[in-house]
Amino acid sequence: MSQRILDAVTSPADLKVLTDDDLAILADEIRGEILSVTSKNGGHVASSLGAVETILALHSLLDCPKDRILFDVGHQAYAHKLVTGRLEDFKTLRKYGGLSGFPKPSESPYDVHPSGHASDSLSVALGLAKARDLRGSDEKIVTVIGDASVAGGMAWEALNHIGHAQTPMVIVLNDNEMSISRNVGALMRHLGMMRATTQYREARDSMQDKLEARGKLGRGVVSLGRNVKESMKQFIIPHSMIYEQLGIVCTTPIDGHDIPLLREVFASVLEADGPVLVHVVTRKGEGYKPAMKDPERFHGVGPYDLGTGQLLKKAGGPPTYTAVFGDALCREAEADPDIVAMTAAMKGGTGLGGFAQKFPDRFVDTGITEGHAVGMASGIAAGGKKPFVCIYSTFLQRALDQVIIDCALPKANVKFCIDRAGVVGDDGPTHHGIFDIAYLRMVPNMRVLTPSNEAELVHAVHTLAKLEGPASVRYPRGAAQGVPLPEEPQLLEVGKSRLVREGSDVAILTFGAVKTAAEGAADLLAEQGISARVVDMRWAKPLDAQAIAEAAATQLVVTVEPGAVAGGAGEGVLEVLSLQGAKTPTLVLGIGDAFVPQGSIPQLMHDQGLDAEGIAASVLKKLRG
Amino acid sequence: MSQRILDAVTSPADLKVLTDDDLAILADEIRGEILSVTSKNGGHVASSLGAVETILALHSLLDCPKDRILFDVGHQAYAHKLVTGRLEDFKTLRKYGGLSGFPKPSESPYDVHPSGHASDSLSVALGLAKARDLRGSDEKIVTVIGDASVAGGMAWEALNHIGHAQTPMVIVLNDNEMSISRNVGALMRHLGMMRATTQYREARDSMQDKLEARGKLGRGVVSLGRNVKESMKQFIIPHSMIYEQLGIVCTTPIDGHDIPLLREVFASVLEADGPVLVHVVTRKGEGYKPAMKDPERFHGVGPYDLGTGQLLKKAGGPPTYTAVFGDALCREAEADPDIVAMTAAMKGGTGLGGFAQKFPDRFVDTGITEGHAVGMASGIAAGGKKPFVCIYSTFLQRALDQVIIDCALPKANVKFCIDRAGVVGDDGPTHHGIFDIAYLRMVPNMRVLTPSNEAELVHAVHTLAKLEGPASVRYPRGAAQGVPLPEEPQLLEVGKSRLVREGSDVAILTFGAVKTAAEGAADLLAEQGISARVVDMRWAKPLDAQAIAEAAATQLVVTVEPGAVAGGAGEGVLEVLSLQGAKTPTLVLGIGDAFVPQGSIPQLMHDQGLDAEGIAASVLKKLRG
Repeated sequence: MSQRILDAVTSPADLKVLTDDDLAILADEIRGEILSVTSKNGGHVASSLGAVETILALHSLLDCPKDRILFDVGHQAYAHKLVTGRLEDFKTLRKYGGLSGFPKPSESPYDVHPSGHASDSLSVALGLAKARDLRGSDEKIVTVIGDASVAGGMAWEALNHIGHAQTPMVIVLNDNEMSISRNVGALMRHLGMMRATTQYREARDSMQDKLEARGKLGRGVVSLGRNVKESMKQFIIPHSMIYEQLGIVCTTPIDGHDIPLLREVFASVLEADGPVLVHVVTRKGEGYKPAMKDPERFHGVGPYDLGTGQLLKKAGGPPTYTAVFGDALCREAEADPDIVAMTAAMKGGTGLGGFAQKFPDRFVDTGITEGHAVGMASGIAAGGKKPFVCIYSTFLQRALDQVIIDCALPKANVKFCIDRAGVVGDDGPTHHGIFDIAYLRMVPNMRVLTPSNEAELVHAVHTLAKLEGPASVRYPRGAAQGVPLPEEPQLLEVGKSRLVREGSDVAILTFGAVKTAAEGAADLLAEQGISARVVDMRWAKPLDAQAIAEAAATQLVVTVEPGAVAGGAGEGVLEVLSLQGAKTPTLVLGIGDAFVPQGSIPQLMHDQGLDAEGIAASVLKKLRG
Repeated sequence: MSQRILDAVTSPADLKVLTDDDLAILADEIRGEILSVTSKNGGHVASSLGAVETILALHSLLDCPKDRILFDVGHQAYAHKLVTGRLEDFKTLRKYGGLSGFPKPSESPYDVHPSGHASDSLSVALGLAKARDLRGSDEKIVTVIGDASVAGGMAWEALNHIGHAQTPMVIVLNDNEMSISRNVGALMRHLGMMRATTQYREARDSMQDKLEARGKLGRGVVSLGRNVKESMKQFIIPHSMIYEQLGIVCTTPIDGHDIPLLREVFASVLEADGPVLVHVVTRKGEGYKPAMKDPERFHGVGPYDLGTGQLLKKAGGPPTYTAVFGDALCREAEADPDIVAMTAAMKGGTGLGGFAQKFPDRFVDTGITEGHAVGMASGIAAGGKKPFVCIYSTFLQRALDQVIIDCALPKANVKFCIDRAGVVGDDGPTHHGIFDIAYLRMVPNMRVLTPSNEAELVHAVHTLAKLEGPASVRYPRGAAQGVPLPEEPQLLEVGKSRLVREGSDVAILTFGAVKTAAEGAADLLAEQGISARVVDMRWAKPLDAQAIAEAAATQLVVTVEPGAVAGGAGEGVLEVLSLQGAKTPTLVLGIGDAFVPQGSIPQLMHDQGLDAEGIAASVLKKLRG
């Protein structure tokens, strides 16, 4: 191990003395390190393996952290972490208190931007370029963005602006769709590089200027001239034409695992005087057969056996909420042919694989385009069908306006199925889903279901299928509680809670799966002689005013929710109590006013005081003043 | 008047019997009606005048409401309202209880979608098409979208999906940029129409199929063949090339004021078996010289003199909050060269005209791309500059995720200047800014200033300029209060309120300009022998816990905010009181849990009980209740 090149790399500057052959060896070592750690910790394996050479080639040429590399989504950046002084900590990847699985500015000066949500890096990069130009400095700015992210609307907005702004920056389009032949040929390679150079750009511009100086006729000719040139380009680089039309010079597709080629192209385009897109073709999972064979499974994985690639799953155990949801929606869809399921590039993640197989015509995957997905759902509903839009809590933030204007305002019959609600674990602050109760509660006409276990989730999905107008259900990541699933789902009355445990001293009103922790707290409080009622509120909106009034007859009303306190359901309960004129002391428990770090879900819930012990301790403290 | 064709048009079906000449006369009559009403009521004049012929041509061919026309943003749809049975009510346009200035499904079966926010219509249209295809019906679906809206990311997401889905729909790109020669020539006209027909499409597809059947070599040839065809097209329709590449057949630019031509082209493309984009070139303000001369001023106007086009402004009076903000930001920018101002296509609306003139390099207009604008701000801040992002409250909903992930999470030094906060008047529910306090309060690291008058706004802008990290200020539409502006702006202490009026029975805590109404309420309460304290809270986040504790020493704590109660600052005050263990009765006043209709701002505030009388009445009821 001590003879690895990797062990000698303490900063990207160390890469500058390495030969292409050294870098190729280093790439292998990095792959070994990534596999060694992710097989224990889980992580984003396939993308990170695919981007190793791209990252090494860039860092061997750039002068970071003065120069800036951004990683869109950021799940491909492990090699970047390993060559920027984080080799020793890499074994803590995605662990509580350890390295983030994504670039994180507070972790390293080499990390520019908190990646995690797709398609934002080009905007951030253009902002960095704008600031650079205002300062009059000359650092290089490079973004690495995948072919799925670049299709997002925000990326399009940025590319349109980048083409207009014409300030130097390099966009590395990491294309692993494999739809493009990797044997692009010597001519194309040559042309691609030629066209990306400053000389080419200057030649083009100067011809343009000369012709434009001739006035109207000249402009006509330029337009013609431009088109001839564009046409020629089109033969060479069909897939990047759209970006060329925005004013961004594009290279031909080049092999993203060929370090000498990458270095040659990057060295050339980094000197360009305007924006250049380098179209890099990579293989997801490169260098690890199980990941190459099944890159989707190795996109984000838990711990796996390094030899076989098999996931180290615990046998048995309850199903995930996601799986229960997927089955429940299929069941409703069998009974109701109007149901349509939608996802924004998360078919597997949202449990819709079975639905897509059973009802291919009624399944819509829009790609990483949450805003469009929700807008389209509004149209599907206006056309008489019943769309169920399945989006993670944190990503639905991208579509808040569409939820309000396109769905809630016209009372569109759209159902929002919000997976990964609450803390999600290892992916950390960009992926926790802690704001959805707050941002949905404020929306008129919206209803919000918060099932407390998988049986309740089945009832909730059934209820959404029967309810007219906009409504939503939120449920957490990971394994459900192991309660039996209902034979026949129930229709839940809107705004009605469910008494889980009677008690007279304290009333604990819960939203979601924290109900179980609240029951545990009630047990602990009973040991202290305190009788605690537990009410599964079921709905964060509308709230059950009667259950709240009954709670106010105890000595303390406690609310517990796995979401932000600010704007959350607990504050809604306080408002109901205010209207009722109640004077009962209250205690609002939930996620505090800070971003939640990464870690195991139980650990994070413990830190937030949302496990049984935490809830009981807070109640005792409040009661004893 | 009774001899107008317009008076005989009770539904679009009546247009089918009209000749092209009749339709041209009708277009003139409609312009007269639009001018007559908007000169009294104000409205979106320039866009609506520009779209008259497009709308008449479409309605003369379609069978609405079975067929569906969507209007992106919707400010161009007055002619649509006038030919769909709303002539008589048209004089109530934008008035309280009257016709909406935008398409509104609850107003008419001819209105498909609640327009108002740009770039969403294509997603909704694709949703309608999906529902149609699932139902197996055959209605036509048409979207009219402007060249500014189509640049928004959501529109791009939809176009990408539309090109992929290949289901029939017609996209009318209403291009009034005037950057394109309107004399497109007979050949182009011919080619454009030819290419849009089913025959052309079929011919192209069949050639493709034949060649592809030949295998690898054939595919190579197709690719070549395609490119030759594309290249040819590029000479014809340079501006629509991008959409062609997405798989959407595009026409050449055609004259959007030529009814026979429009009808001919629309009739042809409505029979196509896939998506077609009709590129229509129009003049904003067509037919009304003052609007043609100054289309920007006539985009959205108040009442004006029909003869001269001069606005009927009341002389004198206080400046708008927008103008005060613009001046205040210029002042800060003079002192601090790092300040950068940003807008998303609302330079005038956000008061940045002066800034753009004084500091052109430090001014960024991203177009209608709120998500990108906020992402770019994050980058500008990461590059050491201080971006002030100026976006209306309702449109910042489009960028919530970027506020959270790109700005708040990394504590980026981005300042959000939120104009049109609270109810905005005639534009109605799509434009009221009532959610921003709720959706910003929940965000960790965010600070929210709510100045109570224009002097406080000046202090707030100064404070933002000095504060590190993410922070925001919200202020309302329209005239400020007429208080003197400070010679020297003050630095406001974070989270500290300002006692406005002492009082011992009741404490009214206010957020924003409702402070004045609260003072009026205190006067009214004084007449009833009730001594009311008024506290200008200044910050919706963080809240002033000490002021709240002092308020709890009275008999009633009242909060008043011009924003949604659900998730708002009032609920935040309740949470602070809960933490403090206060038992004082509370009253939370704000916007109720329903979308607010259009109307004058005073009328709407009255309806919400947020004027002096309403606040006083609520307090009395609570005290005596």
